[in-house]
Amino acid sequence: MSSANMTMSTWVQTCSMVNQAGRSRSFSSSTVNPFQLLKNFPVAFSSLPPPKRCRPSLSPFSAVLTSQETVSEALKEQKPQFDFKAYMIQKAESVSQALDDAVPLREPLTIHEAMRYTLFGGGKRIRPVLCISACELVGGDVSVAMPAALAVELVHNMSLIYDDLPCMDNDSLRRGMPTNHKVFGEDIAVLAGHAFVAFAFEHIAVATHDVPPSRVVSAIGELAKLIGSDGLAAGQVGDKVSEGSDNAGLEMLEFIHVHKTGALLEASLVIGAILGGGTDE
Amino acid sequence: MSSANMTMSTWVQTCSMVNQAGRSRSFSSSTVNPFQLLKNFPVAFSSLPPPKRCRPSLSPFSAVLTSQETVSEALKEQKPQFDFKAYMIQKAESVSQALDDAVPLREPLTIHEAMRYTLFGGGKRIRPVLCISACELVGGDVSVAMPAALAVELVHNMSLIYDDLPCMDNDSLRRGMPTNHKVFGEDIAVLAGHAFVAFAFEHIAVATHDVPPSRVVSAIGELAKLIGSDGLAAGQVGDKVSEGSDNAGLEMLEFIHVHKTGALLEASLVIGAILGGGTDE
Repeated sequence: MSSANMTMSTWVQTCSMVNQAGRSRSFSSSTVNPFQLLKNFPVAFSSLPPPKRCRPSLSPFSAVLTSQETVSEALKEQKPQFDFKAYMIQKAESVSQALDDAVPLREPLTIHEAMRYTLFGGGKRIRPVLCISACELVGGDVSVAMPAALAVELVHNMSLIYDDLPCMDNDSLRRGMPTNHKVFGEDIAVLAGHAFVAFAFEHIAVATHDVPPSRVVSAIGELAKLIGSDGLAAGQVGDKVSEGSDNAGLEMLEFIHVHKTGALLEASLVIGAILGGGTDE
Repeated sequence: MSSANMTMSTWVQTCSMVNQAGRSRSFSSSTVNPFQLLKNFPVAFSSLPPPKRCRPSLSPFSAVLTSQETVSEALKEQKPQFDFKAYMIQKAESVSQALDDAVPLREPLTIHEAMRYTLFGGGKRIRPVLCISACELVGGDVSVAMPAALAVELVHNMSLIYDDLPCMDNDSLRRGMPTNHKVFGEDIAVLAGHAFVAFAFEHIAVATHDVPPSRVVSAIGELAKLIGSDGLAAGQVGDKVSEGSDNAGLEMLEFIHVHKTGALLEASLVIGAILGGGTDE
């Protein structure tokens, strides 16, 4: 991807995701700052000045280009070679294949059936693709980030199962299908969620190759911190404690989104970049 | 501890624990075999032939010593210098102090209160002391194993919370106190359990010093495998699926104990030995 161009919409989407994730850095010690990554983002808008920082307003572009037509025209002239949709589909498919290989159906059947039920229930694989992209962005090979990419998807699937539990949102359907605990029972659902997290760390530790072990340790530390009681779990707690409360204001809403959703997005980018060879610089 | 003697009862207790843990190796790829560790176990029964392997029957001893009096007399003559009880108490206290430092009460208060409620609810710290002992056994310093020792205790606390949930054993009391979900609600209990596991891996990754990173990665991989869907979680699944079943025989009972209890005991020994510098030899 290093020499590929991107469409404007791709750039906006990516910036939006990175910004959303980057805000959660306030509660974690950073090894790789996602905002720093953007300085080297491989977008070849050769005739336009690259933005110093990635912001949703995209002011450097909006000052020059004011309509979709103008944007399209400008991009057409540059003959963009990077097909974002094809990139996403190809990476998502490779992630799904790797998940299928990594989590085969085996004894004890009940828990592995439950894990695979949610794992292959229609996820878009956004987090693992972000992880892989961040790795490629700093010059790393896809294979280097794949175990970590699977790990963030596994953790995401834990959060889906737990979110749906009767003691949480008490949802009966997800993506049009009965939720995990409706099919396998609450006990197996809780255990499957835990097993996802355990396997996420096992897989990074065991299946990551051609990376200095210090980087693997660093990636594990970042992922663990960002999904724990100062990260993803903190957001879920915020969500629960503010349920039905009249005092839950904008600040709490922001806290919930930054932690419950943003932290894992951030982890995806950060650990991908760490494993790909990125530094704080 | 390397030059210290042990009492006979200590030896039996330790052998029993190691054997219980060691049986679970059948379902995991071993980096360090706990049985191998016993070959170099620092027990100075200088006048008695050391057992080739540690077995509950302790046949080499029972053939010579047939009563408690005889055992006591034989040990008195050897002037044992190692005080097992004092060792356990001192290590357990240092583990509890380290846990207090590592999991302070902070925002979000609810989840950290829930974590500390179970963490300081009277645990004997057997697993962390096993971890530290295994590290010392292979020549490592206590400080090297302390983060991993805390990690196994954190994971153990997750298993306690999850075991008590209404969807599991539905217990109202543990150690004479209301169970975690009775005090904080099922939602927070589930999240606290998850946060324990996340912090376990974070703490090993971030707080382990003076150990080659490759060993830290190896320890994380072993712990993760032994608490996941092929280890601790498998045992919990076995426990649940055989509940009320007439077909659950001795084999299933053994499977449950080896996985639900043995796997984490094994992990404690194995990762302690890995971090202390042990090898497969």
